[in-house]
Amino acid sequence: MTSFGEMREGEIALGFDPAERARAGVTFIGRIRSEWQPGTAPRNLTQARADGHGARIELDPAYAPGLAGLEEGRAIWVLYWMDRGRRDLIVQAPRHTPDPRGVFALRSPVRPNPVAMAAVWITSLDAGRGIIGIDAIDAFDGTPVIDIKPWMGGIDVPPER
Amino acid sequence: MTSFGEMREGEIALGFDPAERARAGVTFIGRIRSEWQPGTAPRNLTQARADGHGARIELDPAYAPGLAGLEEGRAIWVLYWMDRGRRDLIVQAPRHTPDPRGVFALRSPVRPNPVAMAAVWITSLDAGRGIIGIDAIDAFDGTPVIDIKPWMGGIDVPPER
Repeated sequence: MTSFGEMREGEIALGFDPAERARAGVTFIGRIRSEWQPGTAPRNLTQARADGHGARIELDPAYAPGLAGLEEGRAIWVLYWMDRGRRDLIVQAPRHTPDPRGVFALRSPVRPNPVAMAAVWITSLDAGRGIIGIDAIDAFDGTPVIDIKPWMGGIDVPPER
Repeated sequence: MTSFGEMREGEIALGFDPAERARAGVTFIGRIRSEWQPGTAPRNLTQARADGHGARIELDPAYAPGLAGLEEGRAIWVLYWMDRGRRDLIVQAPRHTPDPRGVFALRSPVRPNPVAMAAVWITSLDAGRGIIGIDAIDAFDGTPVIDIKPWMGGIDVPPER
């Protein structure tokens, strides 16, 4: 098995690499263009938004017709593939949590399937060229995009119980 | 290229199957157990909730430690892989929309990467066995699960602008 380097106290690895147990394939429909590089990236979307840098998504031209019906001012989900990390840490000890925690209780980029999602505003749209301006994102420049969906309050906010 | 059968008026296909252009692999961490089969499934999560059937997620045992830190009464995202549809319809004409619309303006299960996400409540949790009861889901019984994340209002609801 691949060696993944250091672990913090209390962390637990799976004992296998989920990447080697692929059951389906994701394609990359475009890339995120942002100000962020490893080492300078914000910790999360809230911090990215506070930093005030917009970003954009550049779709591969084949996918540009899929933007029909979106417009500036709408909120969307951007789903992206965090392809730089290990995928086998099932219990993690992030610096901001007091105790180790399961990956499914964290929004860490280190996870069995490194899909991240960001709820952002469309600030500009060139549907013909497949370019979407967004208000903020916490992803590195060049991060692969795998999906875009309309944000919908009626389903994306769990109803009071 | 694979033939995918009928298209409705106004629909546009990519001319290639995104599944054949995979750039990364997703693994299945478990399965959804629901009341739904093709032909009886609700149209979306809101309808599933109205129907009043709970559901559960059965994780593969290796992933069960990843649940540490979650508890009954928390809201989570369930990300699942809608593996029964075609992936190449870039403009679609759903019955409930007046005009054809781009896939990225729809929550259709037919999309280049068929990742769906549902914001649901944890109604029971057996972390040792990797079984999570949830209040509702619109996925067929047996649908593969690819991720679980905590729902967080601070990032999952785009802030007023």
